[in-house]
Amino acid sequence: MSDSTALELLKTKLRSIHHLHDAAALLSWDQETYMPTGGGAIRAEQLATLQTLAHDQFVSADTEALLIALLDTSSGAILPEQAASLDAASQALLRETWRDFSRAKKLPSTFVNELERECSLAQQVWVKARKTNDFQLFLPNLERLVELKRREADYLGFTDSPYNALLDTYEPGATVAQLKPLFHTLRTELVRLLDQIRQSPVHPQTSLMTQSYNTDQQVEFGRLVLTHMGYDFQRGRLDLSAHPFTTAFHPTDVRVTTRVFERDLPSCLFSCIHEGGHGLYDQGLPPSQYGTPLGESISLGIHESQSRLWENAVGRSREFWQYFYPKLQARFPEQLGSVPESEFYLAINRVSPSLIRVEADELTYNLHIMLRFEIELDVIEGRVMIDDLPDVWNAKMQDYLGIIPTSDADGVLQDVHWSLGAFGYFPTYTLGNLYAAMLFQQAKIDLPQLGQHMTEGNLLPLKNWLNDRVHRWGRQYSASDLIKQVTGMALTPEPFIDGLREKFGALYQLP
Amino acid sequence: MSDSTALELLKTKLRSIHHLHDAAALLSWDQETYMPTGGGAIRAEQLATLQTLAHDQFVSADTEALLIALLDTSSGAILPEQAASLDAASQALLRETWRDFSRAKKLPSTFVNELERECSLAQQVWVKARKTNDFQLFLPNLERLVELKRREADYLGFTDSPYNALLDTYEPGATVAQLKPLFHTLRTELVRLLDQIRQSPVHPQTSLMTQSYNTDQQVEFGRLVLTHMGYDFQRGRLDLSAHPFTTAFHPTDVRVTTRVFERDLPSCLFSCIHEGGHGLYDQGLPPSQYGTPLGESISLGIHESQSRLWENAVGRSREFWQYFYPKLQARFPEQLGSVPESEFYLAINRVSPSLIRVEADELTYNLHIMLRFEIELDVIEGRVMIDDLPDVWNAKMQDYLGIIPTSDADGVLQDVHWSLGAFGYFPTYTLGNLYAAMLFQQAKIDLPQLGQHMTEGNLLPLKNWLNDRVHRWGRQYSASDLIKQVTGMALTPEPFIDGLREKFGALYQLP
Repeated sequence: MSDSTALELLKTKLRSIHHLHDAAALLSWDQETYMPTGGGAIRAEQLATLQTLAHDQFVSADTEALLIALLDTSSGAILPEQAASLDAASQALLRETWRDFSRAKKLPSTFVNELERECSLAQQVWVKARKTNDFQLFLPNLERLVELKRREADYLGFTDSPYNALLDTYEPGATVAQLKPLFHTLRTELVRLLDQIRQSPVHPQTSLMTQSYNTDQQVEFGRLVLTHMGYDFQRGRLDLSAHPFTTAFHPTDVRVTTRVFERDLPSCLFSCIHEGGHGLYDQGLPPSQYGTPLGESISLGIHESQSRLWENAVGRSREFWQYFYPKLQARFPEQLGSVPESEFYLAINRVSPSLIRVEADELTYNLHIMLRFEIELDVIEGRVMIDDLPDVWNAKMQDYLGIIPTSDADGVLQDVHWSLGAFGYFPTYTLGNLYAAMLFQQAKIDLPQLGQHMTEGNLLPLKNWLNDRVHRWGRQYSASDLIKQVTGMALTPEPFIDGLREKFGALYQLP
Repeated sequence: MSDSTALELLKTKLRSIHHLHDAAALLSWDQETYMPTGGGAIRAEQLATLQTLAHDQFVSADTEALLIALLDTSSGAILPEQAASLDAASQALLRETWRDFSRAKKLPSTFVNELERECSLAQQVWVKARKTNDFQLFLPNLERLVELKRREADYLGFTDSPYNALLDTYEPGATVAQLKPLFHTLRTELVRLLDQIRQSPVHPQTSLMTQSYNTDQQVEFGRLVLTHMGYDFQRGRLDLSAHPFTTAFHPTDVRVTTRVFERDLPSCLFSCIHEGGHGLYDQGLPPSQYGTPLGESISLGIHESQSRLWENAVGRSREFWQYFYPKLQARFPEQLGSVPESEFYLAINRVSPSLIRVEADELTYNLHIMLRFEIELDVIEGRVMIDDLPDVWNAKMQDYLGIIPTSDADGVLQDVHWSLGAFGYFPTYTLGNLYAAMLFQQAKIDLPQLGQHMTEGNLLPLKNWLNDRVHRWGRQYSASDLIKQVTGMALTPEPFIDGLREKFGALYQLP
């Protein structure tokens, strides 16, 4: 078997496996958007079957035989006789495929099926538990999931902490040892800044955000912003769901969702921009590499950097609103006609500790993440009992943000992640914020007209820059290599902290 | 392996294979309802992969081993030592599974993949061809499909005509030899009745149907009727698509679609009722038999009998409108407020030869079917060239209905079926009409209050009767056995013809 034949056969195989992932993704998207409630139980089974099958096909002897023709299956090293004729992209494709294969191979098919089924059911129980503020209802599911995730870590293998095995699923290469000092530095700076803001004479008024805003008009405005961002509706959709998300079946079919409340203007607006950032990444992946790692996003951290860059660096900037605020006023003349842009800008950038992560401001958001990171680290390493989680949560909320949830629904039950078995996912949100700040700093250097363009509603130069620097590479580079390649620096919280200091220093008239 | 173990293992296997069909059905539903246009090409590949995989899993050595433990794989006869301990339902399950297995086994996996891919692409070409009235655009796809369907018939094997192999896919047991005389009788009677109607002094006015009707209100009215029919929205949805259809993933998730035009009141209304009839069948299948033949509908003819029974016997009856017409008037007071019920009733029952099958009246509809049956028989048996089809079509339209399409879009290109490779499907529509008339005749005997209930908008007794007599059996009986069991008669066109004579005799004051 010649190397190019083996590689082509491998790609074909990967593409057909990806079709199963696409189908599963559509089943999930449908579950969140249009599925009738009665369809929940069978949907869990359908998803479990598809995920198990995709897993089985991926770790099959067929796939392994193709890999053996190309690389050393003990080390993952590409065979010397093949390496010479493979370009850097193909070598990266093999490196990443090998990473996925060797991880997947460690998970028994029965385990994958059990985990998938449990997650799908747990998610439905979580929905009820959150709605009825009943942590006890969710407790047995959560206990089973934690047990399953510990087993997953054991199957995958790890050094130092089982949490590293889970973290590596979402953010390849990241470790507890790396995150702890990073988060420590960040926390110190954030708390310092938050204290300064607390003492500021400036008190943004947010009541203008909770007037009555027609929900159809809100969604239409979100659509307008997405169009300006370069999100392609010929290759995408915007729907409503309880929790906004983005899903992609292929660069030609990438879907974002939002949610909309009559008396909460920022919710729909910023979730559209946020998910639009994710959507641009998925629409910007190379179609020719569909199904292979080079057609996939690098990590959740890099994915989140795209959404946060658009949501915060763009969507909460003065330049952006210089163009869009008159358009928003025109849609809501009664509510905003007499509100000056400066007041609106202050309101969308208000810093104030709050209970719900997804509604948190740009600064305190990361404190929500650190709290979750510490809790799930303790859970996976077995230092806390699951039934103590509501108390642990509330104590940390008091410690980090100075407020205590009045209900578990607004506390430990607020996020869907754990019900999906997604332990190790939360830290990627903060990594996303840090990457976003680094990338945006570089974009401003590479695109000297960026600010000017934004004031004109021309967001395409930024989108094209991200397409070129980030999206089109798929997983050819690791997160750390990509960031170094684009910005010349290793991961650092400095640009993020500097950005906050600059913005809130001016906004809150800090010393 | 004990029989019950083998049977249970077989059922589990069938259920997991069905999950793949469910996923494929969702991909198709999504393609027709919400998929962005850009996603078409990859969707074709995804569908091909899923269908091929489902086929491969079904004909796998695993499935065969389970069957071998239960039946003689040369004849399909249940092993004597097993038969004693299996109830009638289990024996029927095995009989039908064997039928499916032995058919599927004859189709090579590469062929299934090729056919699925070609159909998915052809469908997209057909959409363009119809839109641009360009038969030549669709011609190469249609030629490839006919070639593939002939190969399929060869793989499956047949007696007398390759068309029988295709027909048997949709209507097990039906043959050209059975249909020809049946359709001949029917045609003679229909043409006679049509001639009488042509000479009638009664000329229903249909202009009231083409006034402006708010489309949202139309869909809401459709929803109201569906609710009265007992269609369960907790286990279903109503969406819009270019062509109305019903799809089911499980009895707990059955979806119907409709289409709506501002100036065509009957379109949305009757497609809702029609698809609702299909939907009730799928919601009425036994969930405990999901994935097995006992959880599936008998045939397309029986499926269509459900939709036509509701659409015509119920939805175009005086009794039905006695309850619903005031409600429709209340929604459209300007358009219908001064139109008496009798005039509306006449309008929805107007008989008039027309170009488009799906818009045809209850009587001429079957002439559209016979024309298609004859054409596709000639195509599959190789008596006509594909590029002659527009002329053949138009000549038959002249012969059967006395009118000639002014464009291929309204002629040979009007139906999606051939683009989906569905040759042998059309005759099931007429079979459905005949079955529907037989079933409704029996329902009136079994439910003496049926007419009275209908005038009160109480459609549940009929729905429950159909649940009990038809739906809950899945494929336990063949179509002919079921019809005999419920009505005491073999398939006959008499009740259908009698029904038309009675209705149109009164309506058109025929001699």
